[in-house]
Amino acid sequence: MEATAHSIGLVEPQTLHVDDPLDLDCGKQLSQFNLVYETYGTLNADRSNAVLICHALSGNHHAAGYHSENDAKPGWWNKCIGPGKMIDTNRFFVVSSANLGCYNGSTGPGSTNPETGRHYGPDFPVVTVGDWVRSQNLLRAHLGIDRWAAVVGGSLGGMQVMQWSIDYPDRVAHAVVIASAPKLSAQNIAFNEIARQAIVTDPDFHEGRYYEKGVVPRRGLMLARMLGHITYLSDDAMRAKFGRDLRAGRINYGFDVEFQVESYLRYQGESFVTRFDANTYLLMTKALDYFDPAYETGGRLAEAFEPATARFLVISFTSDWRFAPARSREIVDALVDAGKQVAYAEVESDLGHDDFLLTMPHYANTMKAYMSRVAAEVGA
Amino acid sequence: MEATAHSIGLVEPQTLHVDDPLDLDCGKQLSQFNLVYETYGTLNADRSNAVLICHALSGNHHAAGYHSENDAKPGWWNKCIGPGKMIDTNRFFVVSSANLGCYNGSTGPGSTNPETGRHYGPDFPVVTVGDWVRSQNLLRAHLGIDRWAAVVGGSLGGMQVMQWSIDYPDRVAHAVVIASAPKLSAQNIAFNEIARQAIVTDPDFHEGRYYEKGVVPRRGLMLARMLGHITYLSDDAMRAKFGRDLRAGRINYGFDVEFQVESYLRYQGESFVTRFDANTYLLMTKALDYFDPAYETGGRLAEAFEPATARFLVISFTSDWRFAPARSREIVDALVDAGKQVAYAEVESDLGHDDFLLTMPHYANTMKAYMSRVAAEVGA
Repeated sequence: MEATAHSIGLVEPQTLHVDDPLDLDCGKQLSQFNLVYETYGTLNADRSNAVLICHALSGNHHAAGYHSENDAKPGWWNKCIGPGKMIDTNRFFVVSSANLGCYNGSTGPGSTNPETGRHYGPDFPVVTVGDWVRSQNLLRAHLGIDRWAAVVGGSLGGMQVMQWSIDYPDRVAHAVVIASAPKLSAQNIAFNEIARQAIVTDPDFHEGRYYEKGVVPRRGLMLARMLGHITYLSDDAMRAKFGRDLRAGRINYGFDVEFQVESYLRYQGESFVTRFDANTYLLMTKALDYFDPAYETGGRLAEAFEPATARFLVISFTSDWRFAPARSREIVDALVDAGKQVAYAEVESDLGHDDFLLTMPHYANTMKAYMSRVAAEVGA
Repeated sequence: MEATAHSIGLVEPQTLHVDDPLDLDCGKQLSQFNLVYETYGTLNADRSNAVLICHALSGNHHAAGYHSENDAKPGWWNKCIGPGKMIDTNRFFVVSSANLGCYNGSTGPGSTNPETGRHYGPDFPVVTVGDWVRSQNLLRAHLGIDRWAAVVGGSLGGMQVMQWSIDYPDRVAHAVVIASAPKLSAQNIAFNEIARQAIVTDPDFHEGRYYEKGVVPRRGLMLARMLGHITYLSDDAMRAKFGRDLRAGRINYGFDVEFQVESYLRYQGESFVTRFDANTYLLMTKALDYFDPAYETGGRLAEAFEPATARFLVISFTSDWRFAPARSREIVDALVDAGKQVAYAEVESDLGHDDFLLTMPHYANTMKAYMSRVAAEVGA
């Protein structure tokens, strides 16, 4: 797991502790909080080569590299971040933090509430994309970075990128918005609502206080993840991957797993339970639901983008039915209407929403070319 | 609720009791069973004007009319069956039965197992579309009908229509297959599997023996129905119906219902629990998963249709993403390949899969014209 030509090797998370209260969009405050983050690559002398990575629903700070020699899996975006990769750690200083509300380092519902001495649980406030960006901006200042060379994110991460461009225009040179949407559709919200209902109706949820009961709402979290997986994968990808293949090679006429796709989903659901927190899932889906930068401008997205000065790269994937290319084109159209500089790539793909985690040639080449220009601009 | 120009008024379910054992595709037998059914209109002298209605996942025998003067709701296809309607009860004798495995009259998991004296519960055998058609054929014989003027059904009902045309070619003059598919896709199966997992992981499921515990797995059934609803409605229909409208008119930043679409889904889920049985839901989704008439012919659907002599009408809806028009065209292509007579209508629609329950002009006109010719053929 040493750093090699293709891997950044071992990485270690760091923690920023903030003692100043953070005002949240919901009207509440966090009196103090931690943000856990990782960095990859080296900050250059004029501190101009920093790239912020914003994570999606099930992501965290561990975007690339390995935590130990025996680590079975690298960070969630290791395919795209590293030496010579799309986001080249030979040229950029890459920063990746876990959002508030997460469960493994940054302050979240599983953390101790200093006011009660108990887990926050359901008392952890609803956090928004705007809140995350506000907290990430404190991390930026802490690292002594005046302006991000780029802020980059896919899906919910792309929403944070847009918010950065609007809320801190002077702090973002390039905004890279991948497989995202300007706001959720009613159907998107509906899927989230079912996932949440699966969790909160699980008897082991205990109104969000399951930590104290020594249980986790595993049935609910499993269902939420299974449902998520259907929306991440395209129908074609499922057909290619599983078709109607029978697990036992023949029909058994029973309620055990019959088709390969059932087996896959159950596995995905069950393994998720061991590495994700149910309250965090609720918070992340709510942040998705609420994201709507045009809410304050009467639905006029172009007007919402007015303050932005960043140059944009928007990327979508043809097989993504969760955040289809049409949703990315809404972003592009609004940016064009607002007179912003925007490049758009619609990548032919098969797999669906999760394509943004991968490295198909059109996608990889577009990202590499764009990020290479960004690096050149800052002399990196 | 008297019969009027537009309604068939009050109707009364009847029951066919069968004492001969029925062989099922799973290899088991039902030693005896009931089929509950309703009829609308009058059988003509030569018994040639009978139309069989096959129901979909959440349907039953009560397709049209009212059960009492105070009935709030008519049968599930009342918009389309009645005097002067698409399926005109002034001309046809319409028969509608509840499939085996249902919960309100026909023998199903909530019925008493004569071998044990207990509810069948999980011991009720897995039933297939083929089994249903075999049992419906006994009802046909019981009613003294030699040949159906038409067999008609939407969604899972359309699958029964196809099976009728293959298994009993001499008994079906016209086969009307609406919003259906020749088999489920991996994505369709995945949605069914999540619905089933929601039910069977509900602690109140008690491995299917909840009847004896005096409970119902309401959380699981609610989630299953919410999920179903997303797949029945198009994204556009959800947008038109709910958009991102906030229930309270403003954002509350909480986990109560925030958007109208959440409120709608919870209502749909909760009301379903009071009128549907969880074991039936499991059986119906399994019948959907297993339907694949081309399984025995190595995937060659045209070959599976070889025995059919019926003339076909196939109808799909452009906004239906559950059983998209492409799936209906697979049926049409196979019928054409097999040299069968088939008419196909692709109806422009907004609402999605459940459009088949409604009466948009193109759909209503197509059905009326077709069924009118069917009636004329039999002198009705």
